[in-house]
Amino acid sequence: MVKVGIVGGTGYTGVELLRLLVAHPQVELRAITSRADAGTPVSQMFPSLRGRVGLAFSHPDEAHLDQCDVVFFATPNGIAMQQVRTLLDAGVKVIDLAADFRIKDVAEWEKWYGMSHACPDLVEEAVYGLPEVNRDKIRNARLIANPGCYPTAVQLGFIPLLEAGVIEPGSLIADSKSGVSGAGRKAEVATLFSEAGDNFKAYGVAGHRHLPEIKQGLTNVLGKPVGLTFVPHLTPLIRGIHATLYGRLTKDVDLQSLFEQRYAGEAFVDVLPAGGMPETRSVRGSNICRIAVHRPQGGDTVVVLSVIDNLVKGAAGQAVQNMNILFGLPETTGIDLVPLLP
Amino acid sequence: MVKVGIVGGTGYTGVELLRLLVAHPQVELRAITSRADAGTPVSQMFPSLRGRVGLAFSHPDEAHLDQCDVVFFATPNGIAMQQVRTLLDAGVKVIDLAADFRIKDVAEWEKWYGMSHACPDLVEEAVYGLPEVNRDKIRNARLIANPGCYPTAVQLGFIPLLEAGVIEPGSLIADSKSGVSGAGRKAEVATLFSEAGDNFKAYGVAGHRHLPEIKQGLTNVLGKPVGLTFVPHLTPLIRGIHATLYGRLTKDVDLQSLFEQRYAGEAFVDVLPAGGMPETRSVRGSNICRIAVHRPQGGDTVVVLSVIDNLVKGAAGQAVQNMNILFGLPETTGIDLVPLLP
Amino acid sequence: MVKVGIVGGTGYTGVELLRLLVAHPQVELRAITSRADAGTPVSQMFPSLRGRVGLAFSHPDEAHLDQCDVVFFATPNGIAMQQVRTLLDAGVKVIDLAADFRIKDVAEWEKWYGMSHACPDLVEEAVYGLPEVNRDKIRNARLIANPGCYPTAVQLGFIPLLEAGVIEPGSLIADSKSGVSGAGRKAEVATLFSEAGDNFKAYGVAGHRHLPEIKQGLTNVLGKPVGLTFVPHLTPLIRGIHATLYGRLTKDVDLQSLFEQRYAGEAFVDVLPAGGMPETRSVRGSNICRIAVHRPQGGDTVVVLSVIDNLVKGAAGQAVQNMNILFGLPETTGIDLVPLLP
Amino acid sequence: MVKVGIVGGTGYTGVELLRLLVAHPQVELRAITSRADAGTPVSQMFPSLRGRVGLAFSHPDEAHLDQCDVVFFATPNGIAMQQVRTLLDAGVKVIDLAADFRIKDVAEWEKWYGMSHACPDLVEEAVYGLPEVNRDKIRNARLIANPGCYPTAVQLGFIPLLEAGVIEPGSLIADSKSGVSGAGRKAEVATLFSEAGDNFKAYGVAGHRHLPEIKQGLTNVLGKPVGLTFVPHLTPLIRGIHATLYGRLTKDVDLQSLFEQRYAGEAFVDVLPAGGMPETRSVRGSNICRIAVHRPQGGDTVVVLSVIDNLVKGAAGQAVQNMNILFGLPETTGIDLVPLLP
Repeated sequence: MVKVGIVGGTGYTGVELLRLLVAHPQVELRAITSRADAGTPVSQMFPSLRGRVGLAFSHPDEAHLDQCDVVFFATPNGIAMQQVRTLLDAGVKVIDLAADFRIKDVAEWEKWYGMSHACPDLVEEAVYGLPEVNRDKIRNARLIANPGCYPTAVQLGFIPLLEAGVIEPGSLIADSKSGVSGAGRKAEVATLFSEAGDNFKAYGVAGHRHLPEIKQGLTNVLGKPVGLTFVPHLTPLIRGIHATLYGRLTKDVDLQSLFEQRYAGEAFVDVLPAGGMPETRSVRGSNICRIAVHRPQGGDTVVVLSVIDNLVKGAAGQAVQNMNILFGLPETTGIDLVPLLP
Repeated sequence: MVKVGIVGGTGYTGVELLRLLVAHPQVELRAITSRADAGTPVSQMFPSLRGRVGLAFSHPDEAHLDQCDVVFFATPNGIAMQQVRTLLDAGVKVIDLAADFRIKDVAEWEKWYGMSHACPDLVEEAVYGLPEVNRDKIRNARLIANPGCYPTAVQLGFIPLLEAGVIEPGSLIADSKSGVSGAGRKAEVATLFSEAGDNFKAYGVAGHRHLPEIKQGLTNVLGKPVGLTFVPHLTPLIRGIHATLYGRLTKDVDLQSLFEQRYAGEAFVDVLPAGGMPETRSVRGSNICRIAVHRPQGGDTVVVLSVIDNLVKGAAGQAVQNMNILFGLPETTGIDLVPLLP
Repeated sequence: MVKVGIVGGTGYTGVELLRLLVAHPQVELRAITSRADAGTPVSQMFPSLRGRVGLAFSHPDEAHLDQCDVVFFATPNGIAMQQVRTLLDAGVKVIDLAADFRIKDVAEWEKWYGMSHACPDLVEEAVYGLPEVNRDKIRNARLIANPGCYPTAVQLGFIPLLEAGVIEPGSLIADSKSGVSGAGRKAEVATLFSEAGDNFKAYGVAGHRHLPEIKQGLTNVLGKPVGLTFVPHLTPLIRGIHATLYGRLTKDVDLQSLFEQRYAGEAFVDVLPAGGMPETRSVRGSNICRIAVHRPQGGDTVVVLSVIDNLVKGAAGQAVQNMNILFGLPETTGIDLVPLLP
Repeated sequence: MVKVGIVGGTGYTGVELLRLLVAHPQVELRAITSRADAGTPVSQMFPSLRGRVGLAFSHPDEAHLDQCDVVFFATPNGIAMQQVRTLLDAGVKVIDLAADFRIKDVAEWEKWYGMSHACPDLVEEAVYGLPEVNRDKIRNARLIANPGCYPTAVQLGFIPLLEAGVIEPGSLIADSKSGVSGAGRKAEVATLFSEAGDNFKAYGVAGHRHLPEIKQGLTNVLGKPVGLTFVPHLTPLIRGIHATLYGRLTKDVDLQSLFEQRYAGEAFVDVLPAGGMPETRSVRGSNICRIAVHRPQGGDTVVVLSVIDNLVKGAAGQAVQNMNILFGLPETTGIDLVPLLP
């Protein structure tokens, strides 16, 4: 049994981690911390977990996280970097669901996240936890930077094209749509039901924090810099990301076959048959990314459609996938869930 | 392994049965029939099941249902009664998710459902599959009438009060709200997104088919007739029923304790602490009924709040619960799912 | 032209007042105040008003509200009572959309609202602005307490029955459902899209502030105290209230005719034909209350269905209706809007 | 007063036309036809119109449409072309909200719409009713082809860039999102609440009927052919289109100023200040198109965000705008509505 701790479990990625971990056959949940809600039973804050989680939130100082095998950080950006070194020194593996260790260029990170980084050396060590790219490195990592939600959907869609060198890398477009849970469980006017409901809008057009993360990932895959226009949109659904990706083809290639071969062995990437158009609900509650590739009217623009559940493959599910890899468990253990439809 | 067949799996209860059964460790899914869609792979109609269900819909004549241990009917009303006898004669157990065997008074059934019953003798034999009331009878049944969604939520809320004899039985009120999936996967204007979305309305006020079912169940519990006003409402959510129940107290009694004791041993009924107010999402995707009991301002009106997922405890989940009982499996096998929240 | 000021226009009732007033042919909008947002153009906060409202929010001290003919308070509870006397002394009429002047029993008000009242004498003077009951008093009022949203829907549904003396007044039930905009434009977790969306729940079962307001109104109509169980529910729609009302009949009476006669001359109450079931969207964006009356299965329980748009007939529209009456304008001026469907 | 008839008013564009026309001060509504629903009062099908529309649907043969000044066709594609000639011959002006007269290349039309055209000569005569481009021609037209919803939002966004010649015309991308009402009021599984709700998907990627319409419009503006990739998406909102448009800049130009100047005199096109991001709800129920232009990270990709209400500026509202122009009325008459927010 893997002894697990969670830091900061009162947000949506936290409750989703709990949903997955309480049903994981190889996990023993030891502690879940919240400074503000210490003492509150988890099932009181999240009644969906009544009867499944006996723990109360504990104060970080009393959580004995150093006795865990792995600790997940489901905290706001800037928290994990303060606490990770102590845990690593104690031999605990760490999976950070926030952005603290995702960007290798620390100056770039500091620009986008507006704070100084507390441990640049650990940024260098950290492994970016996208199993479909970095599985081998993940296996031996101490510290995993779990990818962002948009970056997961966008990278998985572009990777086959860039690896095969069949599109212009300088003018990629990622028109991306996210459900509102992506904004987190924070009291804010913009994500109220009466604001975000029955409404659709773009945001962050001038620059979104996931832009450098995506560019870094694609640049690594390609071996040279990519140019990317990334426009995120807020969509009135609770869970789900739909990325519509555009690239200019430079070669005539069997796109369908390219994608099928790239992801042939992947348990959590499903390439739809030719002509398919994935729906976000077809992955709701599951760790699956479904992808379809199109070439409208046979032109030179390739269109990739990529959907994930932002809280699962885009956050908690991918984190558990990384944990499974870290501890040598079958990669699908505990996250082989059937999507909830309707 | 229990060999399972499904008749009519193209609606919401069908796809929900599939979601549960493909993850059930003791089930071997043998066939799923659809006259109209024979030959279509299940995963083509329901992409959420890609990679999980290899079967195609088969024609009823070629499905060899008589070689199953149990057959679920997820068909419109009036279909199961045509086919059940042959299966029972072949030694197959049957669980009907439609209404064909729910009402013991055949004349009453024929009035509400507008057709002649094909096998009144089997109506008499059938066991009403509400485990919290009929568990022992279910264990030995050949034919189970799986309860309706509203009837499940309403009966579980009223039963403790009626069994204890603490309310006037002649003036019960069940103000009930259902998500739109309760109307099924049928092409109809009234349940279009643009009609049912951002809208709330009552329907069936003059009389709804679940009224006689609920009255029969409560009458059986009480031992004499009850009077019930039942007003269903269509609510803009996909899954979920919220029943708000009103009764007039005739005795001063510890209501909280009454409910807790009644459901003490039940895996799928969760009585909230005093003052609780259950949300439909707290049971989304799960087989749980959560109940709270209130006595506003200490008056003589008791208010019970009862929520279920209409497709799970209100349909497919309860059907699997009944199957587990029928085959001597632990009652929670395969349906011990954590609700999906948010 | 009526010179109008608004205090506190940054919430949903504020923006709805603006929507109505900018299109009102007899209104000159002079000022709209917000302490926190002074200087911000109204159309920046509410882009729906771009090109329609040139004003910026002004600081209360600089708004010259005493030069208006009428001032609307669209403020949180407890604000209007601090400022009304000065305006009344200056000859300005006041319409308070909050609850400060709704409850005549000041001690009762203080209990439910948790503060001391600043001007009990004005409570006595204030007229409760439900035109269908108090039209004559409104005409000559200086200070109008605009009714709450639930109280409008519930009272209009019960009034014909109580006036006619055909139901037991001691055991009324008002099962009420509200859209999320009723909770206001406040940053709160409970009304986030990902919390309130695809979810249904009761709240305030133990006691809601609209309970004493409704009881007072119905008691006035009946001439003696009523007993009421009031259960509000939060529903995933933006606008709309649906009240489902239950009473026990004491006389056999033509209910349809009773309702039609009671509201025969009312521009904003629409009694549906027998058997009708009003939808909230049928009044979306309009000042109309649509009502239907039922007697299920011919029993002794009467069921009234009453729908309004909580922001219009339940708030801003009714306030403008009161303004029209106050200033001798045709009652429908500027609020004769066709509902937005779908 | 303009005497108006409507053919086929039982869909969403029909009820929206009615909403606008009953409040239009210069319109006398003479007839609304529906073969299937002849005799049914309009207000019975659309309770939002109770008290506002006294007419019943009439049979086309008895509607005396030839006595109208103008007839709107709110019919499925292929109906108007059968009936228009008779009306034109009788001196009646015609505005077709369907697609029969939108595409000048009849062979192209026949390919996309799958039928033979009944009157190619009238296609040639018809004026494409996008006032911001064709106002002068509309003024003198007999027959107006009212633009599609996507084409309105996409063209208004691209036009300033193409007219100014500042983008590569061969690689335009229009990533477009529509509310579900755009699919019409037809009984279909794909647009049920439980299918389209809490879900997001692309559709028609291989080719959508609005593609040739948009290309024709942009080609006319540019004076030579454009290349366009058009990907529509179904979004869980009732009303609203959000087009996110991408082009590759060929010149350095003040984009903000370009857009502001192009639409300076337009009542129904609102260019947001630099950095703005329009929300669909900011135009809900109104005839406005709001547009913002961005150049992310100062790169060579221009991003235009364009929102409309698909039933108003994308259908019925634009049709009334065209009617106003045709009859010499101020262009905003009857459609100067304030958007409904929230």
